[in-house]
Amino acid sequence: MIPLIDLHSHVSPAMLPGSPREELQPRWPCMHCLSSQKGSLLIGDTLFRDLDWRSWDADRRLEDMARDGVSMQVLSPMPELLSYWFDPKDAAVLCDASNHLIASLAASHPARFRGLGAVPLQDPVAAAQALPRLKSEFGLSGVEIGSNIMGRLPGDAAFDPFWAAAEELGMCVFVHALHPVAAKTIDPPPFYVPFALFPVDVAMAAASILMGGVLDRFPALRIGFSHGGGALGSILGRLDTGWHATDGFKQRAHASPSATARQMFYDSNVYDPAYLKFLAETALPGRIFTGTDYPYDIMQRSPAEFISSAGLDARALASVRVGAASEFLGEDLTQVMAH
Amino acid sequence: MIPLIDLHSHVSPAMLPGSPREELQPRWPCMHCLSSQKGSLLIGDTLFRDLDWRSWDADRRLEDMARDGVSMQVLSPMPELLSYWFDPKDAAVLCDASNHLIASLAASHPARFRGLGAVPLQDPVAAAQALPRLKSEFGLSGVEIGSNIMGRLPGDAAFDPFWAAAEELGMCVFVHALHPVAAKTIDPPPFYVPFALFPVDVAMAAASILMGGVLDRFPALRIGFSHGGGALGSILGRLDTGWHATDGFKQRAHASPSATARQMFYDSNVYDPAYLKFLAETALPGRIFTGTDYPYDIMQRSPAEFISSAGLDARALASVRVGAASEFLGEDLTQVMAH
Repeated sequence: MIPLIDLHSHVSPAMLPGSPREELQPRWPCMHCLSSQKGSLLIGDTLFRDLDWRSWDADRRLEDMARDGVSMQVLSPMPELLSYWFDPKDAAVLCDASNHLIASLAASHPARFRGLGAVPLQDPVAAAQALPRLKSEFGLSGVEIGSNIMGRLPGDAAFDPFWAAAEELGMCVFVHALHPVAAKTIDPPPFYVPFALFPVDVAMAAASILMGGVLDRFPALRIGFSHGGGALGSILGRLDTGWHATDGFKQRAHASPSATARQMFYDSNVYDPAYLKFLAETALPGRIFTGTDYPYDIMQRSPAEFISSAGLDARALASVRVGAASEFLGEDLTQVMAH
Repeated sequence: MIPLIDLHSHVSPAMLPGSPREELQPRWPCMHCLSSQKGSLLIGDTLFRDLDWRSWDADRRLEDMARDGVSMQVLSPMPELLSYWFDPKDAAVLCDASNHLIASLAASHPARFRGLGAVPLQDPVAAAQALPRLKSEFGLSGVEIGSNIMGRLPGDAAFDPFWAAAEELGMCVFVHALHPVAAKTIDPPPFYVPFALFPVDVAMAAASILMGGVLDRFPALRIGFSHGGGALGSILGRLDTGWHATDGFKQRAHASPSATARQMFYDSNVYDPAYLKFLAETALPGRIFTGTDYPYDIMQRSPAEFISSAGLDARALASVRVGAASEFLGEDLTQVMAH
């Protein structure tokens, strides 16, 4: 049996540190716990999301993993905790709340969990400086970042110090949808932002990295994207056509976008077996790992069955279940016990 | 031989009417003609695009159509001429410049051209009132609209008067990328807007129509999208999952997004034969018509070969070449002479 690694699963602390200053309270996240098993995350005084112990309890997660045949979860912060909208020093307090939880869960069951931490990427130098400790002290494999950082796309050269440090340390970077840029100026219908614009923002992030030449400057970087790269797989043909028509986007990107895209990684969280098959066998072969968005309402349930339903060939199936995750994390996970 | 209908081809008048008032000049388009065969479109004093007689000359287009095996072009305005940023009365002057050119080209070669016109959709009632004349006097099959109208998504209920009139008249609506919403607040790398954000904006338009229940209110509408629906094909799984999770987006959309998406149309202009095959055979079977973006630099060259390279089954191939276009235009084109 091939192990199944879920690269896209979130955690959130049962308790969060208080706002360092009273004036931050209206935007500061706060857990209002109803019991040890249930709580509500408030942003200021507004309910952001009801949570339960799946977000912080290892044993509870292991139950679901056994049920779902998930061998290992790679834990990342609830994206709303990435805290790019605070002063970097204040944000670091929240980042470390997530980092401590993730490190302790991963340390408690080293055969079942790996961790991706949080850094205050609104200050790229501070984010770079935070990385060594996340690796050496917290034992994390990499970090999660947002698909934009306060409206700046991650392909912006301002983030080069962060990319340089991640490459140097061999830490992978998982780019997750967050506060979509396209939502800022429109009056969208209900639910439009999470369902339509999350994948749009991830594609925008990936395209900015491709067009900004990030992988040219940092060729050993391991970057992965949530939600199957969002809409990226549908626009690679156009990006390639544009690259050819503009002398490689005026020589900013040395290889075609689709070629560079095949140096990055994407999760399977697209909710469409046919599109997953297109990604995993045709558009981005070998670059798709499993991701579910556990434990949120929108998560892909029964991930093993979902992946199986795509009818992948044996090579692509093994890659989606464990191979691409191994490569992304920089660690051979093919011998992890299957569950 | 199956006819090949190019649903996505643009025209632009060799001469444009002058700005009605001097204060509009900085945004008013103006053709600066170098010869009868070449000219530059200026917006105010700034070069927008160099054009040549392919944009306005029927015989010149017919030469290319013969070379490319295109039986019929469906002509639509250069999107920059849609003029949503002017007062509707001023915009109507520019819309009618396009409408007159399109009508005259279509009338000159009724076996080779059809036309989609322009209306001042920034005023949905005025746009609705303009439609009957486009059909009866200009002989147009439908209209082209932008993927957003000054930042408003076309699924917004404000556009219902327009949709109602289009449905009532049996006029098709082709939604084309224009001034992407997502570009408004970012500082993108060069060429990011046309190559990455055009398809994003088209997907946003389509998702807003799906989530806004437009087809529920106007079930006989025939709506088509440029650029293969942009990124829509990659997010249908997520939209469906969201629809199921939210009681049909709180009962605003009666059918699932992917089901409703299969009532709309999309062109083949995705520059990726594998993704075209995914769209035409799997995601949106029977709903893809040929589109090239002729005569612009980014256009799909050799469209017959491109479509052929997708390796479509016979049914999908016939649909992409002529069947879906017939259905979209509301006219049987299968007997058009193949070229």
